[in-house]
Amino acid sequence: MALFHFGDIVHQKPEVPMYLPQHFAETDPARIEALIDAHPLACVVAQAEGGMVANHLPLLRDGAGRLIGHIARANPLHTRVAQGAELLAIFQGAEGYISPNWYPGKADHHRHVPTWNYEVAHVYGAARFFDDEKSLRAVVGRLTKRFEQETNGAEGWRMADAPADYMEQMLGQIIGLEITITRVLAKSKIGQNREAEDRLGAAEGLEARGNPALARAMRERGGPL
Amino acid sequence: MALFHFGDIVHQKPEVPMYLPQHFAETDPARIEALIDAHPLACVVAQAEGGMVANHLPLLRDGAGRLIGHIARANPLHTRVAQGAELLAIFQGAEGYISPNWYPGKADHHRHVPTWNYEVAHVYGAARFFDDEKSLRAVVGRLTKRFEQETNGAEGWRMADAPADYMEQMLGQIIGLEITITRVLAKSKIGQNREAEDRLGAAEGLEARGNPALARAMRERGGPL
Repeated sequence: MALFHFGDIVHQKPEVPMYLPQHFAETDPARIEALIDAHPLACVVAQAEGGMVANHLPLLRDGAGRLIGHIARANPLHTRVAQGAELLAIFQGAEGYISPNWYPGKADHHRHVPTWNYEVAHVYGAARFFDDEKSLRAVVGRLTKRFEQETNGAEGWRMADAPADYMEQMLGQIIGLEITITRVLAKSKIGQNREAEDRLGAAEGLEARGNPALARAMRERGGPL
Repeated sequence: MALFHFGDIVHQKPEVPMYLPQHFAETDPARIEALIDAHPLACVVAQAEGGMVANHLPLLRDGAGRLIGHIARANPLHTRVAQGAELLAIFQGAEGYISPNWYPGKADHHRHVPTWNYEVAHVYGAARFFDDEKSLRAVVGRLTKRFEQETNGAEGWRMADAPADYMEQMLGQIIGLEITITRVLAKSKIGQNREAEDRLGAAEGLEARGNPALARAMRERGGPL
């Protein structure tokens, strides 16, 4: 399916800078795709006339270098932002505070400070808004299929479960959004720059304090232990 | 302590629009403050010369209409964005997919569609970068105290645990960031627009699928059940 790879457009040294030290630059397309798939609620930022504006909406990768979703028709984004304007869709994965107390190395030399670990993907692209019913049905259908399968499996809700007049009315209240991706900056700040024993210690600290998602990322993806 | 209240600057009808239907506008300062305190990792967006740029960093409310934190000195944000420029700090709380299957009302009339619920605060303000050692020590001290107390209680790490030369070196590698808040848009999309039984049904669905945080917000804050 995935003819498009984020690797084609992942920037290690962005001209517009998210602060991205090389050891934190995430350049593995599969990991970036997995982050987006696992955390689909994007924060979509635009530069409108009066300044920056952000909206939160689920976006899906369509496998061909695009993100798709929809906004409310009443959301002025589609009137304030021109077709083709740049949008920034921010996806955020696991995150958490890292205490120096968790580093076994601390006892030796005490040369550690607190930090925050996280995984994010910043996807830049060109906006296209649309409202033809066929395309809207396709977008809504894909979102529904994806999230209902995950949530309810074979018992998932389908658009056909709702009365036709109601679905038509609902589709009339949204505007489709397609973002054609132009560049991707992704950052995995998961302790790759630490001694293995310190990274493992921090993962254990996170697990003990109820943050297994970030601990897993640090164990699996922070490099060999 | 909190002389400043977000209520002074919370906008229900923003000129720069996050889409914010009145029933989702969060105008309770205490709730906005609680959201920020519970989810301190902000996504800070700026308009730089080459376009939008986002960075993720923990920010604390300082009780007087400001957010404070720090970035790496190597982060070009402080050279690309002027003193006083507008920043947008986005705080995100609980979020999750809401299936129509969870609404008891669905069985009656099937007039429901999927949605996504979430709680966010968009805090706009003017940037001030600083690097005098005294102010940096104060910011780092506050961040450390806050997160170490939460994480390790009385056993919390303190700056004094690290060698003085090392701390000096570390402080030299950061730049302080203070954001003087100019406006706040906050949105609690937690089913306030639903029948109580549907909202409760959705909360139960979330709990059954491992999202107690969003369920709690919907039970506590979605209005009386």
